[in-house]
Amino acid sequence: MTFTTERLTRLRRRLQRRGLDAMLVTQPENRRYLSGFTATDHGINESSGVLLIPAAGRPLLLTDGRYRLQAEEEAPDFEVLVYPRGLFPLLRRLFNTLKPRRLAFESHYLLHSVYGRLAKLAADKGVELVAFTELVEEQRLVKSSAELELIEEAVRLNEKVFAQAYRQLRPGISEQETAWLIEDTMRRSGAQGPSFPTIVAAGPNGAKPHAVPTARKIKAGEPVIIDMGLQIEGYCSDMTRTVVLGEPDDKTLGLLRLVRRAQLAGQEALRAGVSGRHVDQMARRVIAGAGYGDYFDHSLGHGVGLNVHEGPTLSYRNRKKLRPGMVVTIEPGVYLPGWGGVRLENMAVVTPEGCRILNQDTTFLNV
Amino acid sequence: MTFTTERLTRLRRRLQRRGLDAMLVTQPENRRYLSGFTATDHGINESSGVLLIPAAGRPLLLTDGRYRLQAEEEAPDFEVLVYPRGLFPLLRRLFNTLKPRRLAFESHYLLHSVYGRLAKLAADKGVELVAFTELVEEQRLVKSSAELELIEEAVRLNEKVFAQAYRQLRPGISEQETAWLIEDTMRRSGAQGPSFPTIVAAGPNGAKPHAVPTARKIKAGEPVIIDMGLQIEGYCSDMTRTVVLGEPDDKTLGLLRLVRRAQLAGQEALRAGVSGRHVDQMARRVIAGAGYGDYFDHSLGHGVGLNVHEGPTLSYRNRKKLRPGMVVTIEPGVYLPGWGGVRLENMAVVTPEGCRILNQDTTFLNV
Repeated sequence: MTFTTERLTRLRRRLQRRGLDAMLVTQPENRRYLSGFTATDHGINESSGVLLIPAAGRPLLLTDGRYRLQAEEEAPDFEVLVYPRGLFPLLRRLFNTLKPRRLAFESHYLLHSVYGRLAKLAADKGVELVAFTELVEEQRLVKSSAELELIEEAVRLNEKVFAQAYRQLRPGISEQETAWLIEDTMRRSGAQGPSFPTIVAAGPNGAKPHAVPTARKIKAGEPVIIDMGLQIEGYCSDMTRTVVLGEPDDKTLGLLRLVRRAQLAGQEALRAGVSGRHVDQMARRVIAGAGYGDYFDHSLGHGVGLNVHEGPTLSYRNRKKLRPGMVVTIEPGVYLPGWGGVRLENMAVVTPEGCRILNQDTTFLNV
Repeated sequence: MTFTTERLTRLRRRLQRRGLDAMLVTQPENRRYLSGFTATDHGINESSGVLLIPAAGRPLLLTDGRYRLQAEEEAPDFEVLVYPRGLFPLLRRLFNTLKPRRLAFESHYLLHSVYGRLAKLAADKGVELVAFTELVEEQRLVKSSAELELIEEAVRLNEKVFAQAYRQLRPGISEQETAWLIEDTMRRSGAQGPSFPTIVAAGPNGAKPHAVPTARKIKAGEPVIIDMGLQIEGYCSDMTRTVVLGEPDDKTLGLLRLVRRAQLAGQEALRAGVSGRHVDQMARRVIAGAGYGDYFDHSLGHGVGLNVHEGPTLSYRNRKKLRPGMVVTIEPGVYLPGWGGVRLENMAVVTPEGCRILNQDTTFLNV
């Protein structure tokens, strides 16, 4: 039995309960979660394969010839079928033999243009298509202990990499050089790679929460947002520190303290049974109370797993209750156009009584 | 006038000719091409903004607060509007004022789930949605001289990086270390970053055309496929060399010669007025003639520009005539399960009489 067997069994039961005969899985991390096939897609237009999982019967992994060997090695629970002439001729043949009446598909990871072709084929073959947006994602929300171990390993390595790179930073190094140093250190430390392009935003650039590193040289005294993540066996870490090379001025110190207090309020509020919305509010209230509410214009956090951004979200949109074993970021920030920004981000796993913070690093947190 | 003004004017004329009142642009490279806004998206579920371009009137860039400053700096032809509560409430307001009757959208870069919301809004407001799959892509097929310069610059830098990294390779270095060395050299050389994750596939791993670099150490004498690309101001290069550290054996040499002959046949056939299918056939015939037809199971090449994979494709699917100013790869390969693979890839710009090969590097080509 492989680690995917139990996941498949659960999914099949859920399909059966909903009266579905099969599911077409197109989302790459769902594909990996259910099959073990580690190929990544270069964008949604370049899929390296899809799963066709009957509610009863052997699951199928459909891919093109380039991935045959890898798929066979990595996905032993699946029969690997190759489509030499694209997915649709193969799907047509499979619909003829499997004869699904009701087929689930991933509405949030299927292009309108591809859906058009699928709908035509389904109509030809008398298959009813049923749209889902988080059938597999729901299953991924609560992490198993094996998944938690990989995530914790990723967080630990992330901190090690950050500490090692941080020691080498001096005023005059550019944002880009800093980002490369971090990613280079990641790789030399055994990470599979970054979970997203490293953000290094110094001085005024820090006012853009998703700034791309530039050739700008970091000056002593200015706040520098470093937002980085790495992957181990597909599982992601995500961590932000705001550092100052040299002495921070009073404004920077004040904002660091404020953002840290907001983060602590969020961490304090985080526990099973409360909503993502509630946790967001508890942190946001601290920043709003200091008059900076308009300058914290993103949600407090998001889930992390095989995707660096996944459910559950800690935002006003999420009224659902958090459950033990969910993993989220807590990342309040304040962004002042023309001046710069401060953001602090930890990761935590939700527990029945509260949460367990996965981070140990306290660089510039205890100000 | 910025470089986007002329592109917008052309698009508007094309919208008017088709009786369209506006276009919603969701594809990130189309967004960059038309606006200058360089933000990249972390997957299709995390858009950093969309364009709403009326056939007449000021074009709009809709983004969230995190990108406001960057969008305003980079897209001066556009009015930047921020959606604090997601795209759809803002679109609803804009439909009220712009009152488009027929709205083009990008069917190949809009999720089925998002289309569902758009269709509902459109029905509410009496807007007819018209699906397109390559309206902007068609405009991007033929490169301007400014675009060609950037692409050539990317190819030149790619070769410099390859040559520099290649000199440092010795038997015993792993595939991963080789890939990192290449990407590190890229960055130190001023590239914006890789245009796709570098492929290094040694020995049997080379039988997987899209292999991910592993910890496997490269042995003397075995073929190593190195497929790499970088970006300069968004424009991509893409180049593959198959190298041998030490002396290649006769089988490797024979396959290198065969693949090189197929490449030369493709380059010979490439010119304005012939189809992508024809060029693919001319190269494929060489490999099939030697009895390896079943082991070349991908298309001969693809267009390159702001996307590392874009139109036109050199494959049996493409019966359209190639035009001067198109940029394509020519990349035949032979992949033998259990043994390994050989692939050679150059980039070329189509000219009226033939093509101009953008590559100078001949490492292991003239065997």
